[in-house]
Amino acid sequence: MTIHTKIFKNPIKIVETSSIAGKLESNGPLSKYFDIKLEDNLYGEKSWESAEIKIINNNFKNILKKAKLKSKDIDYLIAGDLLNQNIASSFAVKDFNIPYFGIYGACSTFGEGLIIASMIISGGFARKILVGTSSHFCSAEKQFRFPLEFGSQRTPTSTWTVTGHGCAILSNKCEKKVPEIKSITTGKIIDMGINDANNMGAAMAPAALDTIITHLRDLNLSTDYYDLIITGDLGHVGQEILIKLALEKKIEFKNLNDCGILIFNRNKQDVQAGGSGCACSAVTFCSYLYKKIITSRFKKILLVPTGALMNTISIQQNQTIPAIAHAISVEFN
Amino acid sequence: MTIHTKIFKNPIKIVETSSIAGKLESNGPLSKYFDIKLEDNLYGEKSWESAEIKIINNNFKNILKKAKLKSKDIDYLIAGDLLNQNIASSFAVKDFNIPYFGIYGACSTFGEGLIIASMIISGGFARKILVGTSSHFCSAEKQFRFPLEFGSQRTPTSTWTVTGHGCAILSNKCEKKVPEIKSITTGKIIDMGINDANNMGAAMAPAALDTIITHLRDLNLSTDYYDLIITGDLGHVGQEILIKLALEKKIEFKNLNDCGILIFNRNKQDVQAGGSGCACSAVTFCSYLYKKIITSRFKKILLVPTGALMNTISIQQNQTIPAIAHAISVEFN
Repeated sequence: MTIHTKIFKNPIKIVETSSIAGKLESNGPLSKYFDIKLEDNLYGEKSWESAEIKIINNNFKNILKKAKLKSKDIDYLIAGDLLNQNIASSFAVKDFNIPYFGIYGACSTFGEGLIIASMIISGGFARKILVGTSSHFCSAEKQFRFPLEFGSQRTPTSTWTVTGHGCAILSNKCEKKVPEIKSITTGKIIDMGINDANNMGAAMAPAALDTIITHLRDLNLSTDYYDLIITGDLGHVGQEILIKLALEKKIEFKNLNDCGILIFNRNKQDVQAGGSGCACSAVTFCSYLYKKIITSRFKKILLVPTGALMNTISIQQNQTIPAIAHAISVEFN
Repeated sequence: MTIHTKIFKNPIKIVETSSIAGKLESNGPLSKYFDIKLEDNLYGEKSWESAEIKIINNNFKNILKKAKLKSKDIDYLIAGDLLNQNIASSFAVKDFNIPYFGIYGACSTFGEGLIIASMIISGGFARKILVGTSSHFCSAEKQFRFPLEFGSQRTPTSTWTVTGHGCAILSNKCEKKVPEIKSITTGKIIDMGINDANNMGAAMAPAALDTIITHLRDLNLSTDYYDLIITGDLGHVGQEILIKLALEKKIEFKNLNDCGILIFNRNKQDVQAGGSGCACSAVTFCSYLYKKIITSRFKKILLVPTGALMNTISIQQNQTIPAIAHAISVEFN
């Protein structure tokens, strides 16, 4: 049996996080945990793309300020977003002068970044790595679905792309006691034949389950080892499917949640099945979750960012949606 | 001064490579080095995207066959391409059941993959990693420029997206003597204000120079340490700019070449300034260069894949083109 989970002998320190969130998110239940809140999602720019670039740029500046670091203190910058060719990230970071890796794992990208950064640091190739991912409802909606002006009606299974950016600085050392990455499980691509781009939760739930099962099996743990197992953006529809699929394999979750469910108030905010996007798990982790770990509300969490790896052409060509999920175990002892 | 170059105490073994090339490339000067040559770039499929997916899938199968390995022997698969949201790679690898990282660095992606894979292996997190990148002239042209049926006239500075896929298996061990990655230099994003999407060579040349200078400075080497310094896809126009910019900094190349120049015969093939695309450096390295290293034609090469990080929206919005280049030192002793 192949072991896909890697355990760090010296856990990787998450020394700082920063989050920026859009207007709708800032009116939601996690509002008080965000570092920067937008009052207007255009953020003083002329296009949604430029707004997303500014969001990323400002959040990277903010985390450096919070951590009292300069660009030159960061060995690598790992970033990604949902825009074609990752332009939001690469445009946003060009002033920072930091060796750069662009990554793409759809809404799982934040998890992919944490995993790659952890292995690079653990291998001794970096002291500090900055990882961040963004999404913007308007730039994503325009690119993946319909022009905003069209005002298309949304299906109940659809999710709402989170506007924002979450980033974290990882290091091998920290003077303070901070949350640590103990182990990582990199996901495999899972495609169960879903081809409805408005039901990404259904496409991603089997991938989330596959990675969670792999993680627990590799480490010989049961679900209740963690105070919280939190998926990225399955939303209400995807979470129901995850719970059902897990029960078929005799796995019961007592402590399951989802960033896409947490970030909005479904009863008061018209977001259909919940939040999604590269920013969904990144913003939720870098605000609410990080703070709740530090205050010991959660001592052990398993973060499982999920991604649906389609594009508009693949949907038009009637292809199914491959999905992926990564697991990152974060503990605070 | 920050050192951006990492040296491997135990160099990373490039245990096997495999290449697939399109029809035009297979009629070019490197033809005899390719593993698989297409007679028709649609490759029996109904769309260019499906053809690209099949190219990747078949080349990954071919390298496993050449290396006498199975999917389960590979710890991580790192892949990327030029299509929006990296769909060619993620669709192509979904049957392999290998933990997956999607990466995006435009035409520098193969270099980014080699660098990330080398650090993961050196850190002890993997025994074998498969890295591969693809591009397809038709899927790229359709996505980035004009419909193929439109038959647009190409400018003299434009480059021709290489159709194909190159992949390599990296490992910490190999029974045979094989080319080894000795050191790596990760590039920073450089934007010198070029905004002509038909002159990517000009946008990328300053990034290539920045990374080459960083590499040589970090290791205290001069250009003639290497038998060959080979950029990814600057083409004839970009290479001229690179040579001129280098001379301004009193750097002279005696042994410079470019994969985009090597892969086509400019006098006989109508490819304007040369080849480009994620497949350009990947196919050239995994065919011609790898074989020439093994036969000791080149004992020390510096591979410098280059990437232009724009998309169609950024060009339409009059943004300049950020570029990046990574350097990988490959030696055979």
